[in-house]
Amino acid sequence: MNTKSITYILGWILKIEAAFMSLPILTALIYGEEQGWTFVLVMALCLLCGALLTGRKPKNPSFYAREAFVATALGWIAMSVFGCIPFVLTGEIPRFIDALFETVSGFTTTGASIMPDVEIMSHCSMIWRCFTHWIGGMGVLVFLLAVLPMVGGTNMHLMKAESPGPSVGKLVPKVRFTAQILYRLYVVLTAAEFVFLLLGKMDPYEALCTAFGTAGTGGFGVKNSSIGGYSPYIQWVVTVFMILFGVNFNVYFLLLMCKFRDAFHCEEMRWYLTIIAAATLLIFANAYDAALTVENNLRIAAFQVASIITTTGYSTADFQLWPEFSKTILVMLMFVGACAGSTGGGLKVSRFVIAAKSLGAYLISFLHPRAVHKVKFEGKSVEEDTLRAVQLYFVTVIFIVAASVLLVSLDNFDLVTTFTAVTATFNNIGPGLNGVGPTSNFAAFSDLSKCVMIFDMLAGRLEIFPLLMLLYPPLWRESISESRRRKRRRASALGLDA
Amino acid sequence: MNTKSITYILGWILKIEAAFMSLPILTALIYGEEQGWTFVLVMALCLLCGALLTGRKPKNPSFYAREAFVATALGWIAMSVFGCIPFVLTGEIPRFIDALFETVSGFTTTGASIMPDVEIMSHCSMIWRCFTHWIGGMGVLVFLLAVLPMVGGTNMHLMKAESPGPSVGKLVPKVRFTAQILYRLYVVLTAAEFVFLLLGKMDPYEALCTAFGTAGTGGFGVKNSSIGGYSPYIQWVVTVFMILFGVNFNVYFLLLMCKFRDAFHCEEMRWYLTIIAAATLLIFANAYDAALTVENNLRIAAFQVASIITTTGYSTADFQLWPEFSKTILVMLMFVGACAGSTGGGLKVSRFVIAAKSLGAYLISFLHPRAVHKVKFEGKSVEEDTLRAVQLYFVTVIFIVAASVLLVSLDNFDLVTTFTAVTATFNNIGPGLNGVGPTSNFAAFSDLSKCVMIFDMLAGRLEIFPLLMLLYPPLWRESISESRRRKRRRASALGLDA
Repeated sequence: MNTKSITYILGWILKIEAAFMSLPILTALIYGEEQGWTFVLVMALCLLCGALLTGRKPKNPSFYAREAFVATALGWIAMSVFGCIPFVLTGEIPRFIDALFETVSGFTTTGASIMPDVEIMSHCSMIWRCFTHWIGGMGVLVFLLAVLPMVGGTNMHLMKAESPGPSVGKLVPKVRFTAQILYRLYVVLTAAEFVFLLLGKMDPYEALCTAFGTAGTGGFGVKNSSIGGYSPYIQWVVTVFMILFGVNFNVYFLLLMCKFRDAFHCEEMRWYLTIIAAATLLIFANAYDAALTVENNLRIAAFQVASIITTTGYSTADFQLWPEFSKTILVMLMFVGACAGSTGGGLKVSRFVIAAKSLGAYLISFLHPRAVHKVKFEGKSVEEDTLRAVQLYFVTVIFIVAASVLLVSLDNFDLVTTFTAVTATFNNIGPGLNGVGPTSNFAAFSDLSKCVMIFDMLAGRLEIFPLLMLLYPPLWRESISESRRRKRRRASALGLDA
Repeated sequence: MNTKSITYILGWILKIEAAFMSLPILTALIYGEEQGWTFVLVMALCLLCGALLTGRKPKNPSFYAREAFVATALGWIAMSVFGCIPFVLTGEIPRFIDALFETVSGFTTTGASIMPDVEIMSHCSMIWRCFTHWIGGMGVLVFLLAVLPMVGGTNMHLMKAESPGPSVGKLVPKVRFTAQILYRLYVVLTAAEFVFLLLGKMDPYEALCTAFGTAGTGGFGVKNSSIGGYSPYIQWVVTVFMILFGVNFNVYFLLLMCKFRDAFHCEEMRWYLTIIAAATLLIFANAYDAALTVENNLRIAAFQVASIITTTGYSTADFQLWPEFSKTILVMLMFVGACAGSTGGGLKVSRFVIAAKSLGAYLISFLHPRAVHKVKFEGKSVEEDTLRAVQLYFVTVIFIVAASVLLVSLDNFDLVTTFTAVTATFNNIGPGLNGVGPTSNFAAFSDLSKCVMIFDMLAGRLEIFPLLMLLYPPLWRESISESRRRKRRRASALGLDA
């Protein structure tokens, strides 16, 4: 394994994290908060470690899927470990495991919190907490690719390892420019939401935090009541932008290229919007509250559906009190998730569509055993490899969710709490039901459960395989034997062979 | 589609059902119960319909997977509809939908009951209720194949459509003899359990009912307390036989052939026994009740694990009261299920082992992208088609369970009740948790939910695809256009073409 390239990338990730920390420092300056010093300290630490790791540019250009997986997984872990230090130092989240949970929840755009009261947080810590959503939403490696000309051959694998969805396409031939386009779109959309929120007379600081949370489909709120306390206009703005950030960013690129027809024919987006419309109507009918206006009922239903399917996790109502049918719809939407290539989590609409079509093709094969039945998606035949990857993804999700539920059940919470806690963290939503409902938090779980959910959040955001690879013994066995071989070769070259 | 062959098979299924009804009639004679007359009536009805449908032996030998699927699905539905009539006529289960639920639950070896008090049932109705488990366990089509020389080419497809597991093997070259061997083993094992129960001084009638319930891995009890009221010896006998009936019957055939080494090397069986041992020890430790002896604790844990993994559904303790960890293990075992080629339900151990190995091969493919990674099971490479079928099976289970949970959630029971009710019916277990726990029953559900669960029980027992095929529009569209074409051809042959 090319460990030098991996450490080089890790170093750059830390340097970028240091750069991102200027936002909380700036906030501390504006609000005159002394907690800002902790960010200066951690920024220096990140820069130091980053400089040490990026001292020498690696010469070996071989960089394959496994290297990309390991770099991505370790990168996200390193980013979270360093990112949580300010919370511990300021004493706002004194326990390391809690701070790590909160930070992983931030970077993975989950939004599951262990804080019973978020309103006591300092401005600089709060903006860092929400900013992690924004950083994690489009991915730090995509950012890295956008700003840094990398060593040859590494780019596409890295992009694939971090970006969500069964198959990642390049928008333009060069990966670097694709990454730049994605980030530009991301910044423009975030800025647009910020402006729309300001127009609704939202406080600029809260508007920025909310825009970060929506853009990354994260869900950390600045208020304990999430978005429930804001005006109907703001709730509608957030609803629309949550839906927009759940769309495949390819669509926006096509719009930018004036390919309107292609953009509106995106099959995944059409399914995604259909599911949102259907779920909203069903919940509107099932959870209708006669004490409220029709608009209010519709707004609550649309907001919650958009929030859950995009895996944002904001709330405007306590859906824990809804009828079981509505709650069941929400649990299902948690798994469906947003479109591939968006900032949202979950299994992704495209995987479900491809899986359903595979099933149809399988049934047809019993009717016409000799014919070949191709699965088509987005107007193209889906390759066998992609089909296999999609099906295996479902199988892997079952294994991981089952193992996690089993471990978390040791805490002896009721099955719904345990199951939705795992579901909400693995799919990067935030709130679940019962003990982890929209008015509750994740503080009550044991450290073991928190570790399991930290793994789940990272596995969900990085689409499992990078994380699994880290835990896969053959990888380490082979890396060790490889490095031993290399040492032996070097030794024999120096004439020291035993 | 070869509709004549299908109706011919349906006719034979009804005739066989009529023959099986002699057991309750005999029981009614012994106990002098007048409910026996209803069985005589229904027996006559089955014979009449059977005779009408089997009047002419079909000449067209073309019989493929789709015909086998349709014949199997319709056969099981017909069998259940006729089989439930006695319960309605005797008034013991007055509502048709309830009686159908109970009978489908019987034939599919589920054991989920809508009866709050089973001890008031007449002996003849009770023995029919338990006998349906035994009939369904090995499958009525396998019985048909064993006793009837069928029209050419139909056999293997029918056997495959009804038998559980990802790939069905023939024990001997002729399907008919394979079916006979299977039924002989089945009868001998059932008789053995019956004898062992008699040795424990169980009432012969109850011993017979219990043996039927164990052999089919069904789980209808003759007592409201299921097996809880019987002696430790009897509980251990039932535990051992439940485990035995969950083993792939190939193993017994190999033992019969004195191929001991092959029998003990059955990979699926070894995993199955390992899972049972591990789950028993975990539950023993987690749910340990200091008020009971060690033997009693171990017996309760082993009994419940065996009962759930083999999808029998008997109980000796109210596991609803266990800690969440133990309950979660049980819910997982519900999905694992028994071995392929046994009488048990669930997804089958082999599917999980093959799926886990596919996942391992997938991970390895990232380490060595150019090498070919074969999945091996039972010492042989698993074919691509089987791998695909296994993965698609998981995907299909997700879709069906999700759709069922959504529909049943309209009844507004808590999510655990809804989810485990669907799980317990789809995997042919019987009891679930909360509202459908071991001391509760399924009577409270709406008719819609009961219909959904009837579908789930049949889909689970017949491994989904025969049932899905029935609901698959292209099948009917093509069958209709085919029969139109045939009519037109006949008309043109007679010179009547328009």
